[in-house]
Order: sequence, then structure tokens, then C-alpha cells
Amino acid sequence: MQQQGFVIWFTGLSGAGKTTISHILEERLRAAGHNVESLDGDVVRTNLSKGLGFSREDRDTNIRRIGFVAHLLARNGVAVICSAISPYRSTRAEVRSLIGDNNFIEVYADCPIEICATRDGKVEMYEKARRGEIKEFTGVSDPYEPPQQPDVHVRTNTETAHESAQHVLDHLAERSLLREPAASRAS
Amino acid sequence: MQQQGFVIWFTGLSGAGKTTISHILEERLRAAGHNVESLDGDVVRTNLSKGLGFSREDRDTNIRRIGFVAHLLARNGVAVICSAISPYRSTRAEVRSLIGDNNFIEVYADCPIEICATRDGKVEMYEKARRGEIKEFTGVSDPYEPPQQPDVHVRTNTETAHESAQHVLDHLAERSLLREPAASRAS
Repeated sequence: MQQQGFVIWFTGLSGAGKTTISHILEERLRAAGHNVESLDGDVVRTNLSKGLGFSREDRDTNIRRIGFVAHLLARNGVAVICSAISPYRSTRAEVRSLIGDNNFIEVYADCPIEICATRDGKVEMYEKARRGEIKEFTGVSDPYEPPQQPDVHVRTNTETAHESAQHVLDHLAERSLLREPAASRAS
Repeated sequence: MQQQGFVIWFTGLSGAGKTTISHILEERLRAAGHNVESLDGDVVRTNLSKGLGFSREDRDTNIRRIGFVAHLLARNGVAVICSAISPYRSTRAEVRSLIGDNNFIEVYADCPIEICATRDGKVEMYEKARRGEIKEFTGVSDPYEPPQQPDVHVRTNTETAHESAQHVLDHLAERSLLREPAASRAS
């Protein structure tokens, strides 16, 4: 019997720590015996969405494509980690409904924008956004709609990335989505 | 140990029988215990490539996206069937190199264009293409580059779709890619 796959769907501002937590999760899930794929914003923009911009329509198209690919992978047993900003609530809801409530875990990487803007590799981007040199920048010149009821809410300004990853893993375990290495070998 | 996935990559004119053979293969591979995903031209154009046209560049982008998704699925053990026209040799070679020679099976659905143009659902399309009402139509007003050394060459004007599917399955078995239902249960 095919092990159930699922989709860990991060949402949060640039610099909120989505990718950092993703990397930890990826490693932990592999160690637990899962097949894992990470679909991060950049990989997807290169391979699925080249040419799309950052208008609402283009962002939605990008997110729907990630959702479609995540859906195909998850229904074949893969643990999929998506870490695009995905700023719009209704688009996230659409993806949730495609993938199915039981296999969709929305993780809100919550961090005040002032903190995000100080993080490694983000300082210049936020400055450029503030000066209008980068247009349509989420949280500065483009909207971000935080989840109202995320499955997991991590506060990346007050906890470490490892702690955040552990919250996600605990949630997966509660929902019986986490594979036990021993069990996977015996099945 | 994860069962090896692979990609069955059809190429051929519209009406050559790619989708018909795909459906038979899909069923046979499922029955043999494989996880199977079909990425046909239309599904992909809706979910991954909306807005792309039929210029060389747009066709290549479409094919590369199918290749990227097929690659993700195959490396997670899925038997993937792709049945877009994929008219350009160099783009097919690119996808083969992404997926890896060992897991890529190019199937040439070979059928004279006069026969393709008589098939169910294709008559009007070919007539419109000949009248110039559909532009950039492969084989009529747009190039088709047949494979020089396909892994499997099926001649859909002289064999049935079931026979063609069987040729593909025989080839998979020769390359030890075909799962045996009994073996899969025991593993």
C-alpha cells in the first residue's frame, strides 16, 4: 500500500525563514524515510513559470502551478515542501482544495517585516523595495494576507528555525502523516 | 528501497495515436502495481502552460515544463507517460538528458499524416490547418522532426493500439523497468 503523501505549504514574507525551515524539514523527513521534494519559489520560477511577473494574476498562476505539481507528487506518496510567499488567501484556499484538506498543511512563517528586512540577503532587497526600485514587493508595495487559521503557526522572530521545524513535525505526527523509519522498513 | 520510476515519452503527429496508446499503458502499468501519472498535452497546457502559444519557443517551453514535472515524478518512483507532440529533436534530447538515459523511453508513434488526418476528432483540425485557419499546425504548417533512434517505434497505421502498447511494455520488461505484481507485493 502506497504511503500517504502530503504538502507542507509555507506562506510568509520574504525573509520570514520559509526556506531555512524547509531545508531542515527536508533533511528530517528524508531521515524518517519519506520521499521528499522541495518546490521553492526560485526553482519553480525557473522551471515552470519563466516569464511570469509579480502582478496578482501572475502570482496566482505561479502558485496554481506549484499547487498542481505538489498535488501530482503528493498523490504518489511524496512529502512535498512548498515555500513560495503565496500572499493571497483565496489562492492558498484553492490549492488546499485541489490537494485535499487531509494532506495539506499550511504553515505560517510569521515574522514582523522590520525583522525580515534585517535578515541575511534581504537587507538590500527591502531597501530597494522601499525606494521603489523593486516594484510589487510583498509587504512593502504589494499585499500580504496572513492565514487566519494556519495548520501550524511558527514565529520565526522568537523561535529558532529548528524549533519551527519541530512544530511542523509534531503537527505531522499528530495527524499520523509522519512516517516512522522502523515502520516504513517493515511495511 | 524505492522502486525505480521512468518516463515513457511519446512523440508523433496529432492523430498518430499517442493518447490512445497512453490510456492502455496507463491501465496496464497500474495493474502491474506501478504508480502512474499521465501528462498529456492538454492537461499540461491547462495547468502548467496556459498562455503559451505554438511558436518554436513556446512549444519548447511547454515541453521543458513537462520534462521537469516528469523528472520530479520519475525520481520518486512514478511511471510517467507524456504524450505531447514534442516536434523538436533537440528539445526531446534535452529532456532525455534531464531525466537520464536509463529512465527515459522515447516512443515514436509513427503514422502517415494522410492517415492521421482521417482519424476521429482530427478531420476538422487538419482541414482547418490546410486552409490556414489553424496556424503553426505540426506536419502541415509547422515542422515535425521524427526521432532517428527511438527506443520504441510503433507504426499505428499497421498495428492496433493494443499491439503498440504491448511493444512498449515488452521494451520496459527488457530494460527491467516493468514491475511484476507478485514481486511488488513481496518487496
